[in-house]
Amino acid sequence: MTSARAEKLTTPSEREIRIERIFDAPRERVWRALTDPELVSQWWGRGNALVVERMEVTRGGHWRYVEHAADGAHGFEGRYREVTPPERLVYTFEWDGMPGYVVLEMTTLEDLGDGRTKVVTVALFHTSEERDGMLSSDMAEGLGQSYAALDKVLAALG
Amino acid sequence: MTSARAEKLTTPSEREIRIERIFDAPRERVWRALTDPELVSQWWGRGNALVVERMEVTRGGHWRYVEHAADGAHGFEGRYREVTPPERLVYTFEWDGMPGYVVLEMTTLEDLGDGRTKVVTVALFHTSEERDGMLSSDMAEGLGQSYAALDKVLAALG
Repeated sequence: MTSARAEKLTTPSEREIRIERIFDAPRERVWRALTDPELVSQWWGRGNALVVERMEVTRGGHWRYVEHAADGAHGFEGRYREVTPPERLVYTFEWDGMPGYVVLEMTTLEDLGDGRTKVVTVALFHTSEERDGMLSSDMAEGLGQSYAALDKVLAALG
Repeated sequence: MTSARAEKLTTPSEREIRIERIFDAPRERVWRALTDPELVSQWWGRGNALVVERMEVTRGGHWRYVEHAADGAHGFEGRYREVTPPERLVYTFEWDGMPGYVVLEMTTLEDLGDGRTKVVTVALFHTSEERDGMLSSDMAEGLGQSYAALDKVLAALG
């Protein structure tokens, strides 16, 4: 169903972006795909090579990915605030291109009871200007590509 | 003068803390004491041993300090958003004890024209609850101790 595969993007407050997406896989499997470095490297880069330099999925652990795109290498990093398998992951997100602009991302995985999982991510920015900057970037398109790649990883794990 | 040596702490908004302090040293010297790892290790720890594990004072660079206090080792880290000598330093701040709670700190150095320098730091939190948590900690006392130690470092450099 195409409709279920579309992200729903909303702005609950002037400093937040909320993204909701349903995946056709049970919650434990989605959790694995979000937290296993080997699996993350298969979908996060949207088809670009992704090097997971660091990924310590535990409270206080750090993560750092480098995506090798046509226009060069892009580094992303952050730190885990909360890791509660298989339901909640809270971490910071920062792109090397805008160092010091830290987004807090809170991801929850809801078991829909029919073998599907709803993933909701709320991203909180320090200012509404930073939030608006993210909205006017190609973030939504990139996320759609990542999630489409994640669909495939989940299907292959099934 | 005791009065000039006291920090002025205010809360310009519900997510900010602003701290103003005058130092009896010219701006270039204060900048050096804030950005030279060897000098930072002499005052930031307030008398406790401080290991500067990382301090790349450039846009996008990381910093990480470990303070060895009576109750154990405390790690602090962040990343530089803006480095404009000798007037402005913007960086993130995170304590290992609360990973993922990132404060943005904007420090400006104002030349008072009489050999003294006014240092103003505005700390911006993601939420007012995080700001209030910092206010109710011993942050102000610790900062006062750090700045008193900085006074001594500046005097020794004179």
